[in-house]
Amino acid sequence: VSKLIRRIGVGVILIAVVLAAIFFHPLLTGGLLALWIFLASREFTELLRKQGIGVPRWLLPLVNLVLPIVLAIWSVGLKRDVSPGVVAFVFLPLAIVWGYVLFARAPRAPKLVYGSFAVLYLSLLPVHLLMLRQVAFADAAWGFPIVLYPLLSTWLNDTGAYGFGKWLGRHKLSPEISPNKTWEGFLAGIVVSAVFSAFYLPYFIPETGLVAAVVLGLVLGVAAQAGDLVESVFKREAGVKDSSSALSEHGGFLDRADSLLFTIPIFYYYLCCIR
Amino acid sequence: VSKLIRRIGVGVILIAVVLAAIFFHPLLTGGLLALWIFLASREFTELLRKQGIGVPRWLLPLVNLVLPIVLAIWSVGLKRDVSPGVVAFVFLPLAIVWGYVLFARAPRAPKLVYGSFAVLYLSLLPVHLLMLRQVAFADAAWGFPIVLYPLLSTWLNDTGAYGFGKWLGRHKLSPEISPNKTWEGFLAGIVVSAVFSAFYLPYFIPETGLVAAVVLGLVLGVAAQAGDLVESVFKREAGVKDSSSALSEHGGFLDRADSLLFTIPIFYYYLCCIR
Repeated sequence: VSKLIRRIGVGVILIAVVLAAIFFHPLLTGGLLALWIFLASREFTELLRKQGIGVPRWLLPLVNLVLPIVLAIWSVGLKRDVSPGVVAFVFLPLAIVWGYVLFARAPRAPKLVYGSFAVLYLSLLPVHLLMLRQVAFADAAWGFPIVLYPLLSTWLNDTGAYGFGKWLGRHKLSPEISPNKTWEGFLAGIVVSAVFSAFYLPYFIPETGLVAAVVLGLVLGVAAQAGDLVESVFKREAGVKDSSSALSEHGGFLDRADSLLFTIPIFYYYLCCIR
Repeated sequence: VSKLIRRIGVGVILIAVVLAAIFFHPLLTGGLLALWIFLASREFTELLRKQGIGVPRWLLPLVNLVLPIVLAIWSVGLKRDVSPGVVAFVFLPLAIVWGYVLFARAPRAPKLVYGSFAVLYLSLLPVHLLMLRQVAFADAAWGFPIVLYPLLSTWLNDTGAYGFGKWLGRHKLSPEISPNKTWEGFLAGIVVSAVFSAFYLPYFIPETGLVAAVVLGLVLGVAAQAGDLVESVFKREAGVKDSSSALSEHGGFLDRADSLLFTIPIFYYYLCCIR
């Protein structure tokens, strides 16, 4: 029970810090993002080194900071929507990785490819939180509750999948990648996020119909669990259960946000482009 | 000599086809891009399989077609500038790769990572040709000569580096990655593209000063040779000299465009964002 209390305590503190940073200022959001990216990139480097991919320890934590720092500074100026710059700026860290590899020792292809993937996975995906914040806060009718939506949806999905899976789980979903996941938990998780979506989204974005809200809830539910599985692929092949033990029962920094890496960009593109 | 004539003949035909497609219509540009992407993705798949990365033969050629097709269709409509959609659409092929990997056989991490890299390298980078064409043709003062600039600069750089390297080359540039490259050829190549740039760019974009033109020429020269080296990393580790023999003396489709993959995006971002 003391473990459970610690788990809840750490969770509450993390959530409070994240929400406060998003609420108050884009530079705080960007700073928190940069911190998470730095820590998660260190964890990811260890996962790669355990698989025999000899990426040096300094490369990914430093290179992945370029994008959040550039975007955070840019977002303070007049331009509230930072998305047009993202494609351009993502080539900056990629170019550093590619340049480094030309001077590194053989075998070079794995360093080149895993390094580029890390830029995508731990820099391009997470900065969508800042992009979402800026788009949401630029519209007077949206603001904070809109940024909250993918976070709440993902956390509810996680909790639903975990709880129902423990209670009713019988059929393994993907025993090779993540042995504790069940089909029952998976389905319960996406139902929870669809129901949440049906109430939350039409209230805060009135143009969103009930059907669209439910579909988006289902898509985000599937994406959340896919994000979890994608991270598990790396942990499995490194032979570890958690990306680190930095957050005690919550595992590592990467473990805590693996689902958000997928759900936040999807909601961002729904909001900016598809809706 | 008959080899040289065939080499020149194939080169002239390729250049004519590429220039005609760019000149006449975005759908032709997109179609040619899609064809190149399909063929280069097949070659790249073979390079990966020779390194023991078990990416299935159908995956990359199909998945990498998504981005050029979507952008080509989009470019026919009213929106001449297709760049804002590129970040959004690049997640489509990535999501297909990631979804596939969850159902594939272990080891999954290499398939996930090399597959994602292939989307970046052989879909996101090449579609910058279409993005550049649309931006250049949208401006009445620019048009075709602007799209020609990175192509001519890269071809001159290649030829200069090859010719001077053969003639004066003594010091190996990167014997492990590409044994025929020399520092003399490298320097001659970037001088050629800087000189070309100094004459061409101020003439067609009058706001560009001489210093900016020379700097851009140097940057594109270095990028062209880095693009060549990055492709060579994969060929080296696969133990082959050319990506295929489809174009006889020119090697494969990937060999023919490895430098353009880097120089076209750099010039595009100069044109749209930095200038």
